Amino acid sequence: MSSEFDLIARFFTRPAPNAVLGVGDDAALLAPTPGTELVISSDMLVAGRHFLADADPYPLGHKALAVNLSDLAAMGAVPRWATLSLALPEADETWLAAFSRGFFELADRYNVSLVGGDTTRGPLNLCVTILGEAPVGRALRRSGAKVDDGVWVSGDLGAAALGVRYLNGQIMLDTADAALCQDRLHWPEPRIVLGNMLSCVAHAAIDISDGLLADLGHILECSGVGAEIEFDRLPAHPVLAAKRADPLIRRCLLAGGDDYELCFTAPPDRDRAILAVAQAAGVSVSRVGRITAEPGLRLLDGEGREMDIGEKGFDHFAE
Amino acid sequence: MSSEFDLIARFFTRPAPNAVLGVGDDAALLAPTPGTELVISSDMLVAGRHFLADADPYPLGHKALAVNLSDLAAMGAVPRWATLSLALPEADETWLAAFSRGFFELADRYNVSLVGGDTTRGPLNLCVTILGEAPVGRALRRSGAKVDDGVWVSGDLGAAALGVRYLNGQIMLDTADAALCQDRLHWPEPRIVLGNMLSCVAHAAIDISDGLLADLGHILECSGVGAEIEFDRLPAHPVLAAKRADPLIRRCLLAGGDDYELCFTAPPDRDRAILAVAQAAGVSVSRVGRITAEPGLRLLDGEGREMDIGEKGFDHFAE
Repeated sequence: MSSEFDLIARFFTRPAPNAVLGVGDDAALLAPTPGTELVISSDMLVAGRHFLADADPYPLGHKALAVNLSDLAAMGAVPRWATLSLALPEADETWLAAFSRGFFELADRYNVSLVGGDTTRGPLNLCVTILGEAPVGRALRRSGAKVDDGVWVSGDLGAAALGVRYLNGQIMLDTADAALCQDRLHWPEPRIVLGNMLSCVAHAAIDISDGLLADLGHILECSGVGAEIEFDRLPAHPVLAAKRADPLIRRCLLAGGDDYELCFTAPPDRDRAILAVAQAAGVSVSRVGRITAEPGLRLLDGEGREMDIGEKGFDHFAE
Repeated sequence: MSSEFDLIARFFTRPAPNAVLGVGDDAALLAPTPGTELVISSDMLVAGRHFLADADPYPLGHKALAVNLSDLAAMGAVPRWATLSLALPEADETWLAAFSRGFFELADRYNVSLVGGDTTRGPLNLCVTILGEAPVGRALRRSGAKVDDGVWVSGDLGAAALGVRYLNGQIMLDTADAALCQDRLHWPEPRIVLGNMLSCVAHAAIDISDGLLADLGHILECSGVGAEIEFDRLPAHPVLAAKRADPLIRRCLLAGGDDYELCFTAPPDRDRAILAVAQAAGVSVSRVGRITAEPGLRLLDGEGREMDIGEKGFDHFAE
């Protein structure tokens, strides 16, 4: 579109101190840090699927970057650069101003430079590619879990998923609880600092975007191990904590998605180190179970009895 | 969508020999080559805007990667990695098989590993991020043109734009000519080898995606110079060559877009070196004008008289 360059210039051309050459040429030029590996991930967010078409663009700008930063957090990487490609139904300046504010406020907090992308007319679609760095050989993979590792979860779970169900009219919440849940849904906080510090301690990590059981399932599959999870140890968001027996709440905790917390495994003798790291990062962490040689995921109740998570196991929960 | 992982696994998980860790974790791990800068660009292609919603997916897979490779060619970079994010109305296996064939056939030719991306349900949208490398300080920028440089164009111009006008019913073509024009429209050839070899000779480069005048205009603006272009020297595609006086043909040549040829500038004493490089790369090149200290873009006819390119100059042509 003829206004494409104007839009880019106005809203997305900022100084890119991390780049040799930023937005405005055929490509950007970046100088990788010697001794590091490049860590790269892309996420595409589509209106009507990942967010409502009339969603507030300010938190949307935050979330578009946050979900990508969360992938880097799960690798223990330091974020450095991003590209943003946007398809927009119209060149709406108010929308772009709010979206770019949400995007850059988060980018600035983590020292991420926007170095490229594209703007075009089309059904609302956001595609972010994030690049970071990790010391050679030190990135946290899904495949590193070892038998007897503790299984850990950062922060708390379930509130974003409950917020979605509230917006869909599936559940009633009082005003204060609804606000708390929607805050978690719209303003996920990528666990970058925790992920960076865990890279010296943890064996494996993933970010919880599709729900704890599905995402822990990826670690188990990639590592060729199983796990036992104690349901009562799962860190529920305060709005959910008193209602954990409710099937819908249980589903939000185990399979809700949109948590963007880290699930990681670490040797059993590193509990103190992990608690110290988490304290330094300003994030709570909970040990919720352990890695087993026996494959599969077993969910245990307060008496150690196996709970039913459906015939298909954790796959059943994938939405 | 629940079938997301199946789709990715089946069509887009291939060995990624260039990567330390490819598709299947939270992010991919890449080892940059010491002594190089990373060169990165993203393009988003939207159905109904950049291609027809019912476009043949085989050439579409080629083109989605080709337009990104063309950006790296214009930087003189060696392509190495790509991410691909796809929004699809439905998980159509036939479509995915053909699209991925077009994508990977081109990727394999240029030794590009697909290392990440996303697949989601939504209006058809393709977002590719391409990464390459160039020796530190050697990438070709838009800003390097110098007064008295020759202005050069690779290959020939106008056929893709004429193909669009044929598809839109704006012009009649005989069957053979229509096929030639659509071949250029659907199967652009990124000038990677030429771009790589030019990085030792040229001062500035851009790829012609929006039409020669608009894209050369970016070089002039970034370099703070002007240019004189001799219309009769422009390399027209054979289908257009005999009709250059026709206003529609002239428009296709000057402002058609979708050419994906390189426009570059080089010192006047390097003509022989450029012709040798082009021959080695197997691509024709034409010197079409020169860089001037006087700003602006002047188009000259066969007698050296300035031709009218509209009150707004080359901006007028931007579509």
